[in-house]
Amino acid sequence: MRALVLEGSRVRLDRDRSEPRRSEREALVRVDLAGICDTDIQLARGYMGFSGVLGHEFVGTVIDAPTPSLRGRRVVADINAGCGACADCVERDGHHCEARTVLGIVSRDGALGEYITMPERCLVAVSDALEDEQAVFAEPIAAALHVLDAVSMRDPRTAIVVGDGKLGLLIALSLRGAGIETCVVGHHANKLAIAERAGCSVTLEAALDPGMRAPLVVDATGSATGLSRALALCSARGTLVLKSTVADRVTIDTTKLVVDEITVVGSRCGDMTRAVTALANGSVDPRALIEARYSLDDGERAFERAASKGALKVLVKP
Amino acid sequence: MRALVLEGSRVRLDRDRSEPRRSEREALVRVDLAGICDTDIQLARGYMGFSGVLGHEFVGTVIDAPTPSLRGRRVVADINAGCGACADCVERDGHHCEARTVLGIVSRDGALGEYITMPERCLVAVSDALEDEQAVFAEPIAAALHVLDAVSMRDPRTAIVVGDGKLGLLIALSLRGAGIETCVVGHHANKLAIAERAGCSVTLEAALDPGMRAPLVVDATGSATGLSRALALCSARGTLVLKSTVADRVTIDTTKLVVDEITVVGSRCGDMTRAVTALANGSVDPRALIEARYSLDDGERAFERAASKGALKVLVKP
Repeated sequence: MRALVLEGSRVRLDRDRSEPRRSEREALVRVDLAGICDTDIQLARGYMGFSGVLGHEFVGTVIDAPTPSLRGRRVVADINAGCGACADCVERDGHHCEARTVLGIVSRDGALGEYITMPERCLVAVSDALEDEQAVFAEPIAAALHVLDAVSMRDPRTAIVVGDGKLGLLIALSLRGAGIETCVVGHHANKLAIAERAGCSVTLEAALDPGMRAPLVVDATGSATGLSRALALCSARGTLVLKSTVADRVTIDTTKLVVDEITVVGSRCGDMTRAVTALANGSVDPRALIEARYSLDDGERAFERAASKGALKVLVKP
Repeated sequence: MRALVLEGSRVRLDRDRSEPRRSEREALVRVDLAGICDTDIQLARGYMGFSGVLGHEFVGTVIDAPTPSLRGRRVVADINAGCGACADCVERDGHHCEARTVLGIVSRDGALGEYITMPERCLVAVSDALEDEQAVFAEPIAAALHVLDAVSMRDPRTAIVVGDGKLGLLIALSLRGAGIETCVVGHHANKLAIAERAGCSVTLEAALDPGMRAPLVVDATGSATGLSRALALCSARGTLVLKSTVADRVTIDTTKLVVDEITVVGSRCGDMTRAVTALANGSVDPRALIEARYSLDDGERAFERAASKGALKVLVKP
């Protein structure tokens, strides 16, 4: 099959990659549409030491599976394939299973190819009413909505999202869709306009009101200075959700953290069912983020485009 | 009156300090015994820009108060004197009231003198059964037990405290007293022995088992590298409570924070009633931490002793 493969720091289209073979509990899924995420770009820069087929955002169709009724179903997937037996897998979602593989990130070939395999229990069916160009956003929207799991105490009414890249915008749209008054702080008027059209307030970081604070602040900058900038916007007793994974080491002012008793929560993947529901009921519509569509044959160009400064979501059709 | 005063970076005994005068809602309290905290030493190094009488750990006797029944009572105090009118004061404890003063830390003379004034509602009565040398620890024990407020989800069964200084030991003793299996990681066999006698397990940091993890980790190192060292000991989905206030900027590995979805909580002052209860029912006995006792007349020497490397709790009697 054709697949976009990371080898060392090189991303290349392999036209003769072996098709993955499903194991006993896995489904074989044909990828109908995939997205390129900033994490893919970080992986190509050496993050996590991954090599193999890239990609963890997709919508596809089940070709073969142990459960006959799954065959032919349109699905998205929780990208964390846990062992299925440990406490984290049995009692929770396996996102912290120590033996987990992660689609296109840890020891498992990803979705920027024609086929993938995933454990059946990771699959989430998608209703026919959703277009591929909506469903392909299920994984990052699940991650975006997972921000809400970090604020256990009480529902925040207001939030600030720092960063107007793909993830920042999806988080802003998702929080707004969940009924939270959300302000996006960014650097790009064209990107902020997407959040504004979705009902968020927006501000250029250069024009930030120095007194602005919220009880929920999200760092989605992808920058080593993002955590500090987000911390400054957090109210006393507030929660700062850290969504950026940054290769650099990050410096923060712990005095503010202690004196204002801020909670900083690292946040990764979320619940795919919640994401599919939010897409299906229209509370989040991510299609304004689509920057370009490529065929997998042009996968290398697609990756370059996604890695170019300021790019929004690049989609790839196998 | 006599009082130990911070002026710039100089700590000196003022033998002729004006006695504080209580306002309408305040009590005048005679200090019977006070303790010197690492925060006092940080203040003398410029932290918070404080000047005035140092000290926020004390037990005293009410000399005069608006409520007649309070007169003559033995008390400790919540050191945060909020405005009493804002939402944080009305709905919570005023610890984050924006107009608050803090005893011996922010715009309010402290307890290393003969008398202090505090709002009546900050006072907590102490039973006669408690010795002054126990009650004087109420404030740091309240701060220690406040660690438990950071773990909202479910009670952790095990905890690791990094740091075997005064605060680290008090946190370890307090968590152990609350029924949590607690391991202290430190550098000083003599200090670790105090935790061990109180039922904690202990380990020298140099001999740390590299696989050791706990769902609750406390950074009480007071060091700029403490947060990173504590983070490495935190299980996936675990909570790291940051108790150290460090003047330096602190560097952390945010990848671990995000991938393992760690929650980092800044934690400051706690509930004084809970601390007095823990002292009274014997679940925490801090007296093994007493290093030396001084008269206020020797306050400057007491402060030098407290600031000397490795010192445990230095008490001062006015």
